[in-house]
Amino acid sequence: MTATEIVAGVRAGKTTCEAVTRACLERISAREKEVQAWAYVNADQAIAAARAIDKSGSKGPLTGVPFGVKDIVDTEDMPTEWGTPIHKGRQPERDAACVALSRRAGGLLLGKTVTTEFANLHPGPTRNPHDLSRTPGGSSSGSAAAVADFMAPLAIGTQTTGSTIRPASFCGVIGYRPTWGEHRLHGVMEASGSLDSLGILARSVEDVALYRDVLLGIAPEPIPTLDRPPHIAVCKSHIWDRFEPNTRTLVEDAALRLARAGAHVSEFDLPADFERLNEAHRWISSFEFARTFTWEIEHHWDEISDTLRGGRLKDGIGGDFDRYVASKRIAEECRIRLDDLWGDIDVLLTPAAFGEAPAGFQAFDGVPMFQLWTILHVPAITLPVFRGPAGMPIGAQLVARRHDDRNLFACAQWAYRKLM
Amino acid sequence: MTATEIVAGVRAGKTTCEAVTRACLERISAREKEVQAWAYVNADQAIAAARAIDKSGSKGPLTGVPFGVKDIVDTEDMPTEWGTPIHKGRQPERDAACVALSRRAGGLLLGKTVTTEFANLHPGPTRNPHDLSRTPGGSSSGSAAAVADFMAPLAIGTQTTGSTIRPASFCGVIGYRPTWGEHRLHGVMEASGSLDSLGILARSVEDVALYRDVLLGIAPEPIPTLDRPPHIAVCKSHIWDRFEPNTRTLVEDAALRLARAGAHVSEFDLPADFERLNEAHRWISSFEFARTFTWEIEHHWDEISDTLRGGRLKDGIGGDFDRYVASKRIAEECRIRLDDLWGDIDVLLTPAAFGEAPAGFQAFDGVPMFQLWTILHVPAITLPVFRGPAGMPIGAQLVARRHDDRNLFACAQWAYRKLM
Repeated sequence: MTATEIVAGVRAGKTTCEAVTRACLERISAREKEVQAWAYVNADQAIAAARAIDKSGSKGPLTGVPFGVKDIVDTEDMPTEWGTPIHKGRQPERDAACVALSRRAGGLLLGKTVTTEFANLHPGPTRNPHDLSRTPGGSSSGSAAAVADFMAPLAIGTQTTGSTIRPASFCGVIGYRPTWGEHRLHGVMEASGSLDSLGILARSVEDVALYRDVLLGIAPEPIPTLDRPPHIAVCKSHIWDRFEPNTRTLVEDAALRLARAGAHVSEFDLPADFERLNEAHRWISSFEFARTFTWEIEHHWDEISDTLRGGRLKDGIGGDFDRYVASKRIAEECRIRLDDLWGDIDVLLTPAAFGEAPAGFQAFDGVPMFQLWTILHVPAITLPVFRGPAGMPIGAQLVARRHDDRNLFACAQWAYRKLM
Repeated sequence: MTATEIVAGVRAGKTTCEAVTRACLERISAREKEVQAWAYVNADQAIAAARAIDKSGSKGPLTGVPFGVKDIVDTEDMPTEWGTPIHKGRQPERDAACVALSRRAGGLLLGKTVTTEFANLHPGPTRNPHDLSRTPGGSSSGSAAAVADFMAPLAIGTQTTGSTIRPASFCGVIGYRPTWGEHRLHGVMEASGSLDSLGILARSVEDVALYRDVLLGIAPEPIPTLDRPPHIAVCKSHIWDRFEPNTRTLVEDAALRLARAGAHVSEFDLPADFERLNEAHRWISSFEFARTFTWEIEHHWDEISDTLRGGRLKDGIGGDFDRYVASKRIAEECRIRLDDLWGDIDVLLTPAAFGEAPAGFQAFDGVPMFQLWTILHVPAITLPVFRGPAGMPIGAQLVARRHDDRNLFACAQWAYRKLM
């Protein structure tokens, strides 16, 4: 069941939070040994909390819905370990804003999902539920795998580069990265404050829209109805050649199908100098990351992975401040210019990943494709509508103007129905 | 001694971190009962840490310098209580980025300074060292009072509205609010992420410049030398009539003196519609604040002050999302427009507060004056160069372009010497 269906079922007295939670726990019990999506689940604790919700008569917009939370998000009753042995057993004294907002809305915190180390590239134990020999993608690995494997209808992730869109694409679920800056990150581990945002993993666009409003602390509104089919522009950009040929074909075919379904489909090219955004993302994220984690670098250097020490930390520790500021200026300039380029385009269509999830569990990158949209602060959603050569899912990504998240959902819902 | 003098003294073997720390502790011991600047100081702990620094032979840019930290900033070896009984005894497991960066540079964490409740308006026990019957201003009350009263040469504050500039002006020290977004806030309590920044309280411009670089995690550079006297524009703005007449006269006189000293002095008017920024600040800060503290609102409502419940939380809990987004758009638009209005102006000159610190300890506001520069994300520094009718200090505030903090320091140093 989706979150929306659970809320309706609980409200109508057709099911209970306890029953739904037990179903999730059974699925976890059956599959977790293989998928390893969870950093922490305590079945007794979850059932007791579910009973308390049932007993409370809560009529919140999320009442009865079990949700998972990436293990970089503070929870008052569960450890929060950031995917690193350095913070093994760390127990926050309060809930992060997003967890408190979810619980206030009647949601049931099912457990903590596996994150890569510090939400960077070094992988956790999670495997792709569609093929256990493949990566689920990171860094919100457990959140994507848990939702994909029907262990939870909803999960919170985060995104600093591609940490929500990438695992959603690889695991075949919907992943949403909101307009930067709208959701509070209080109690969420910072990676790079200028780029970080929450992410939502779900199995329906309605659920994403519902949960987005819950996490904004506002009364949820239904997805608006489009008064005409959307204007969808295929955006190839300077990294088009780096997508796998099969992925490029899938996107071009999807554009044709959407046009046949009535959409106004066009092509949109980012200005050539937007390619500077890839380097800008690299220098902003690494400069900030290396300062954020000064305490860990000073006291626990030996417990940090080679992946991280030789990657983002290496970039960041020697990071040049003038280059950092120049990168921030480039980013802001491109955001402002992009605002003026949309015309009557509703959303851009672009792949959500270079291709399907690769075999193995090495730190998987594919960064250039994610840097672009993340640094532009635009909202993005990936829809699990493609299959790659090995039968693995690949997402179609839709991107909208900053703050235009609700219209993004309307277009995504329209497109999802046509492409499913 | 200033921080710069301490570093030089320790490096030259003329003093030790222990000796300097003992001097600070003696001053605290003599004055703290009246000033109440500190939320936590443990003399034995500080002396032991100072000895360890002396023994280490550290050659960092801050070696030997005792610093205070506002009690909304996490410290691994001292409690961090956010100025609220709700978090009494809260003990973080790691240092915030700014604390770790200070310690890495050789600084000595002397203790935690008093903050108003959640860094909002409801006051702590701190009194103004210049007149114990008057407010020190907030929210970085203890940091400003400690530096003003020679208990520490440097202290970390934060600013979401006027929380560094205000207490610095009231207590007669230098207060600096950096360009928004450059310093990491990891481990610092979020109030309103779109507006929050670190702040520095100090007694010399050199110290501010030094500590700013330390907190950026970069090698400190000396303040650049101006190749000509600066172009200083007096900015009166739409709130000029709200400054006390005496304050307006002081600023106008200062402009004359700076012109006589060789500065190019002009007048600068913000565009009339920038007055929208006051309301924009109000709706952004309250919307975000009320969501950030969802956990406290849900579980500890009765322990929150009436000041906060009836002020920012009242605004925020019922906050309208569309108005929040509209406010963010206004803020961004004004930032971009201001970038183009500077011409060859180096800095704007404006008062740092409506007037001197009022008598009593009620929640002191004076918000309109701070909202403007804070929401514009520009760097600002206040210099303790004026005296009000009661003989209390008032600051002259200089404001510069975003990311132009180093030139701001150069101009501030030049102006400070002429106005002292």
